[in-house]
Amino acid sequence: MCELLAMSANVPTDIVFSFTGLAQRGGVTGPHTDGWGITFYEGKGSRTFKDSKPSCESMVAQLIQSYPIKSEVVVSHIRQANRGAVALENTHPFTRELWGCYWTYAHNGQLSDYEQKFVTTRFYPVGDTDSEAAFCWILDCVVKQFGDEKPTDMKAVFNYIATLAEQIRALGVFNMIITDGEYLLSFCSNNLCYITRKAPFGKATLIDTDVVIDFQKETTPNDVVTVIATRPLTNNEQWQILTPGQWCLFKQGLLL
Amino acid sequence: MCELLAMSANVPTDIVFSFTGLAQRGGVTGPHTDGWGITFYEGKGSRTFKDSKPSCESMVAQLIQSYPIKSEVVVSHIRQANRGAVALENTHPFTRELWGCYWTYAHNGQLSDYEQKFVTTRFYPVGDTDSEAAFCWILDCVVKQFGDEKPTDMKAVFNYIATLAEQIRALGVFNMIITDGEYLLSFCSNNLCYITRKAPFGKATLIDTDVVIDFQKETTPNDVVTVIATRPLTNNEQWQILTPGQWCLFKQGLLL
Repeated sequence: MCELLAMSANVPTDIVFSFTGLAQRGGVTGPHTDGWGITFYEGKGSRTFKDSKPSCESMVAQLIQSYPIKSEVVVSHIRQANRGAVALENTHPFTRELWGCYWTYAHNGQLSDYEQKFVTTRFYPVGDTDSEAAFCWILDCVVKQFGDEKPTDMKAVFNYIATLAEQIRALGVFNMIITDGEYLLSFCSNNLCYITRKAPFGKATLIDTDVVIDFQKETTPNDVVTVIATRPLTNNEQWQILTPGQWCLFKQGLLL
Repeated sequence: MCELLAMSANVPTDIVFSFTGLAQRGGVTGPHTDGWGITFYEGKGSRTFKDSKPSCESMVAQLIQSYPIKSEVVVSHIRQANRGAVALENTHPFTRELWGCYWTYAHNGQLSDYEQKFVTTRFYPVGDTDSEAAFCWILDCVVKQFGDEKPTDMKAVFNYIATLAEQIRALGVFNMIITDGEYLLSFCSNNLCYITRKAPFGKATLIDTDVVIDFQKETTPNDVVTVIATRPLTNNEQWQILTPGQWCLFKQGLLL
């Protein structure tokens, strides 16, 4: 299994605090030592930092923890390999361009007997994980359903993706985050939770390492920031635990 | 104008030496302060580090200069914006997946009256540069010419891309690097050169900063490493200067 982390916010926000907790699970407080990655959207652009080394040892992960990149949408993943070797091409998040947007995706879980289902004709996996195969199949289905040009109703696209995720869940465990840089869908198969932080902001304490943050000092009264994670990252806040099959669509930090 | 840097090698090789020279041109010895990026292939996987800050000031660029990522194919670019704002989505290199491979591209130059030519139906630009529009058009043409499945003769694909580049050159200045992670094509419009280093290796001195490297200490006798750049990066080696319209296809460091 792996751990997922994602963020949706209405103002560019740094995720250093949450990522610091997550990175500890990559070899210190958790067994997820088979690589990690994080994608930041800044406007329409995105950039992904990846390493097939454990996040607790990675020089690139150290950079992310010391360099506050401000972003409205973030997707991150630390990996404990099951399907697919430990290699850069198997490291999440995965990104593809569709309709002039970068789509980013990460998966926690394991699928079986998926090869026949995930046959695609346009988006092909580069690596050999079940996760990337599922991502390419989702995007292939989306193009077949909605065509080559971006539809105006993107909520309908994400509603459709949730029905695809429900199909994939029949093949195993499928906790998943997918975003086009504006909307962010989180789909729960067995472990996924979120918290929406807004005014009045308080203090939060990380579970995995000895760090406390006072969000009131870091935010303005209008900020809305949702963080999604496999398991709660803080021990003094109320996280919303998703139930199997439940999914949430966020935009600018708000649950739609 | 911008500066390009690329590498093709037959063994995983770090590009710290050459990138150190290039990064100086991003604000110290050159005026290219509008962002930079570098893509490393490691096996089938690739990762791109990007920043819209000048490379001479970028914390991410400092990481690349101190963290030797070993790669067989590298594409890098430092930008002086002409078309398109200074923004992450306009920062090269650009990447798309085609046929289960990550394709990476960077461009130096400027094009005019290109909007009508670069109409695409599958690969769409995310940003608003002439460069990314040209990349999407190239990939659209490649799919139309060769179909949805990867052909066995990839040399034919790159030969075809060179004919597309020749068409684009009619619209302005088009120095370009494109790779599928195995083959690397460099197309010269007015400024591009390369050097192939192999045994017996010697010492090289960077033009842009006071660094000398003794390649004999860094290599084995079978290594073949080609570096491609807008202008020579060292002052004591013989770089091959490409002529307008000339292009070179490399694989594993060797000119094909």
